Amino acid sequence: MLQSKLFTKTKKEVPSDEVSKNAELLIRGGFINKEMAGAYSYLPLGLRTLSKIIQIIREEMDAVGGQEITLTALQDKTTWEKTDRWSDEVVDIWFKTKLKNETELGLGFTHEEPLTKLMKEYISSYRDLPRSVYQFQTKFRNETRAKSGIMRCREFIMKDLYSFAKDEEEHKKIYEDLKEAYKRIFKRAGIGHLTYVTFASGGVFSKYSHEFQMVTGAGEDTIYVAENKGIAINKEVLTDEVLENLGVDRADLVEQRAVEVGNIFTLGTRFSEAFDLMYQTEAGEKKPVFMGSYGIGPGRLMGTIVEALSDDKGMIWPEEVAPFKVHLLLLGENATTKEEAEKVYALLEEKDIEVLFDDRTGVMAGEKFADADLLGIPYRVVVSDRSLKEGGIEVKKRTEEKGKNISVEDLISLLEAKS
Amino acid sequence: MLQSKLFTKTKKEVPSDEVSKNAELLIRGGFINKEMAGAYSYLPLGLRTLSKIIQIIREEMDAVGGQEITLTALQDKTTWEKTDRWSDEVVDIWFKTKLKNETELGLGFTHEEPLTKLMKEYISSYRDLPRSVYQFQTKFRNETRAKSGIMRCREFIMKDLYSFAKDEEEHKKIYEDLKEAYKRIFKRAGIGHLTYVTFASGGVFSKYSHEFQMVTGAGEDTIYVAENKGIAINKEVLTDEVLENLGVDRADLVEQRAVEVGNIFTLGTRFSEAFDLMYQTEAGEKKPVFMGSYGIGPGRLMGTIVEALSDDKGMIWPEEVAPFKVHLLLLGENATTKEEAEKVYALLEEKDIEVLFDDRTGVMAGEKFADADLLGIPYRVVVSDRSLKEGGIEVKKRTEEKGKNISVEDLISLLEAKS
Repeated sequence: MLQSKLFTKTKKEVPSDEVSKNAELLIRGGFINKEMAGAYSYLPLGLRTLSKIIQIIREEMDAVGGQEITLTALQDKTTWEKTDRWSDEVVDIWFKTKLKNETELGLGFTHEEPLTKLMKEYISSYRDLPRSVYQFQTKFRNETRAKSGIMRCREFIMKDLYSFAKDEEEHKKIYEDLKEAYKRIFKRAGIGHLTYVTFASGGVFSKYSHEFQMVTGAGEDTIYVAENKGIAINKEVLTDEVLENLGVDRADLVEQRAVEVGNIFTLGTRFSEAFDLMYQTEAGEKKPVFMGSYGIGPGRLMGTIVEALSDDKGMIWPEEVAPFKVHLLLLGENATTKEEAEKVYALLEEKDIEVLFDDRTGVMAGEKFADADLLGIPYRVVVSDRSLKEGGIEVKKRTEEKGKNISVEDLISLLEAKS
Repeated sequence: MLQSKLFTKTKKEVPSDEVSKNAELLIRGGFINKEMAGAYSYLPLGLRTLSKIIQIIREEMDAVGGQEITLTALQDKTTWEKTDRWSDEVVDIWFKTKLKNETELGLGFTHEEPLTKLMKEYISSYRDLPRSVYQFQTKFRNETRAKSGIMRCREFIMKDLYSFAKDEEEHKKIYEDLKEAYKRIFKRAGIGHLTYVTFASGGVFSKYSHEFQMVTGAGEDTIYVAENKGIAINKEVLTDEVLENLGVDRADLVEQRAVEVGNIFTLGTRFSEAFDLMYQTEAGEKKPVFMGSYGIGPGRLMGTIVEALSDDKGMIWPEEVAPFKVHLLLLGENATTKEEAEKVYALLEEKDIEVLFDDRTGVMAGEKFADADLLGIPYRVVVSDRSLKEGGIEVKKRTEEKGKNISVEDLISLLEAKS
């Protein structure tokens, strides 16, 4: 894509009420726009990254047998009364609205209830199990505080998968498959080395659950990491009993600030019983379906990547989630140089290597470099009078201090080898 | 995909309050689920078709220079007061909600206001124009009546593109490009032959606009078609003046029921003036940006395809939007036959030909045929004891009465030739 045509531009200023690093960098880079506290629009660069994160998650959910659907945001009262989660006293993050005839509706903050109700239409026998169903869908949560940029929003896309199994044994297998799928997701998104499967509270559903906690100073949570065992424990469940169960010595624990980038829950039969989601076993018995739920917020993950990997010059995108692979910079107004840069651009496009071409005229080299650092695209490729004199183009990774001059052919080999 | 693993099943019954043909067939086929009047979930088969429609639209929007973003559903009052569209007396389809501190919010029913406000950050000079920006985003409309299935919903995805031009002349070129892009979309979606570019009212924005009206008995609109000129006129603007302008004789008009599947509007400077979206011309003058808007509801288009192309046995999907290209049916419980069907399935998958494999056991042939007709996948391929005795497999298009027996090699050639 030509940067001269991209409608967004980098900025020096951010809204005065913006305090999070992720929103600050993403707004300055033109990735997102703040509509109000806790509600951000995704602009072309931001949407490209968000879509890549979504696609990674989709591939990993499909790989473990997930079937994709989309439920609605609008929710009716009777469905949620079955589990006593309609009242604002019980669930304090509902956004509520009304039809013209005064019928009250809610905006879904999660989807256990409507999906369990829906599955009653399709599950009646052991032959219909197990099933895993997921969606990328906009959730609404009436958060009192929304100051963490795209890491905690009032409106955000969530991937939520729900599993339906015959019994706890079958459930455990699905749960372990999902745990491994989540590890692959965070690895592909470039934060695997910072992310711990963390033993956590099961909330109202079960005794324990697992969170995926990424270590960062900006984290809202405190976790204790036993690096020697590759185990982490959320502060809220750090008891002698838990330590003993996990075989971890308190002396080995290191306290860390961390942000939750995903969680997996055993739901058991709470929802299936409330909605009478039963199945007939091979022996002809009626039994409630055994459920689990598995969440990741792709936007939160995107914000977390920015928090974890940026430096004082800007963002640093891991290759698989970067808006483009290559940021091609044309420096100088010389006609031959321009022609050479256009040739490189055409060649990269032809090779299906995603490239943002900074073809802008009247912009100083220093400004182009600063923009490239801010946007954080993995490979910066410069075509300038000097690079041509030195026999080629200059390539530098965002994570490197210095670039090197290579030929166009070598650039293509380098980029194709990496993909 | 294996039909034995697909969590949905076909049904004989639909909700008693469902009166539209599109929802009836889509619910019976397991494509969608009715959550409440005017709010439908998309299940795996339905989401596959919806995603294909979205991808067609995306490709055509990108081809005319559209840049994709996603705005938020949550809307703040002050933005909409600038154009006097906040009040429920002026706009009677708002869903409104509230933050915990009682701040009133709306759920976007369209996005001219927030996008115009956003573009102020990025447009200041003639060098920043023209720009076209679009999204696939969930709209909320508090409709009093919602009885047309997925053709008129209270919650639905809409593709809305907004164009920003220097003046009316530049705008007209974009408008014509979009008109052609829309024609390509409806052609690719399989309803091009039924869809007319229709001269219509410009509403509050301009004198006239263009609608894309697809002829169907289920249509909510009345249009007059001059087939000899390839022109259609919406009843609401059928005046002698319009006829004269278009050079159409009243005697040539044929009245038709039709459904609007898209519309394109000239907005002019109404929104840019309200938000002070000005740019500096080359001569240094300040001028308001000239805008247009262009909508298509992918779900509405999906519903319209069902209304237009189905028969009494079920849906008939055009190839480019079908959930799968091939519906492979295994008939009989013979081990050799089963093995042969599995081979065909593996081969199609290997060739990247999308296939739903009805591998279910204990289901009668008649039921499998009826399901195949209901789901409406373009090619039905049967592997049975009989087809194997006759030297191959039976292939039949959904639109054909009778199938023919061919070899597996010929099947692959047939399917690859079509894509």
